[in-house]
Amino acid sequence: MNFQLEEAIEVLERTPITVAAMLSGLSDNWLKSNEGEGTWNPVEVIDHLIEGERTNWLPRLAFLLQEGERKPFPPFDRFAHLGRSELPLQQKLEEFQTIRTANINQLRMLVDPAKDLERTGRHPSFGVVKARELLSTWVVHDMTHLAQIVRVMAERYRTDVGPWTAFLGILKRP
Amino acid sequence: MNFQLEEAIEVLERTPITVAAMLSGLSDNWLKSNEGEGTWNPVEVIDHLIEGERTNWLPRLAFLLQEGERKPFPPFDRFAHLGRSELPLQQKLEEFQTIRTANINQLRMLVDPAKDLERTGRHPSFGVVKARELLSTWVVHDMTHLAQIVRVMAERYRTDVGPWTAFLGILKRP
Repeated sequence: MNFQLEEAIEVLERTPITVAAMLSGLSDNWLKSNEGEGTWNPVEVIDHLIEGERTNWLPRLAFLLQEGERKPFPPFDRFAHLGRSELPLQQKLEEFQTIRTANINQLRMLVDPAKDLERTGRHPSFGVVKARELLSTWVVHDMTHLAQIVRVMAERYRTDVGPWTAFLGILKRP
Repeated sequence: MNFQLEEAIEVLERTPITVAAMLSGLSDNWLKSNEGEGTWNPVEVIDHLIEGERTNWLPRLAFLLQEGERKPFPPFDRFAHLGRSELPLQQKLEEFQTIRTANINQLRMLVDPAKDLERTGRHPSFGVVKARELLSTWVVHDMTHLAQIVRVMAERYRTDVGPWTAFLGILKRP
């Protein structure tokens, strides 16, 4: 196990500034690009990250700490964000920053790393899960979506790179 | 084909601020972590990006524009950066920013997008390649290494996430 609360927070607090550095001011050709039918563009990924802050990570953690294994987490709709908001990207980036900062503050108040990380709750499909598993998933989920954004952007140049495609791991299809 | 010079520059100029946002001030546990023997940690990825600015992208472009298909690009050592520099990360991030900015300025001086993008040179193993292919590869190469950094970081929590591993694409092994 590698999880430590303060190290996890280091990463969680950097994600909003990272996506802002990456996307702020980019042309729509980048921001509206996706990997084909049913896939997300970079802006939809930001919508999804905001939705996770609102309804998934911190709310589930608070539920676990309060209910333990007695009740399963309330369901969470992973597609709730789609088509929900026509706000400009800049406003979404700020909203993500604001809600993430608030959630990190809450996290610090709710969790004593000396005794709460191994506390358990009930996931609707996985069964018993630990606070530490939920928190490390929050971090890895950020990484998953950062990787998705850069993969979606790389996809635009799949044909343009010509023979170099052989050296570019990110263009390999799974 | 999707390549347009100004859009490519939008991405190229964001990579240094993106990696700075992601890595600046992180604990060594994150910065020195890798995916196992023979793989790079996030700092080595930055070293590699700096080396590419020094010896690969812009120099090859200038060579192509000058020599055309007459001579193949001089060889480029993809591992030249390893173990080369013990500078603090902050200094490396600044160096990357400085050299990338200088190279983008050079790029704007060297290339007229109305007539130079389809000009050709000779790659030592691929044979004839176009300026546009080299430039779009520069962009996708950035994306490859951003994806690598977040994948390396996610790897640290592979065990910590417990059952959530099933939902976390970034932890899938190729």
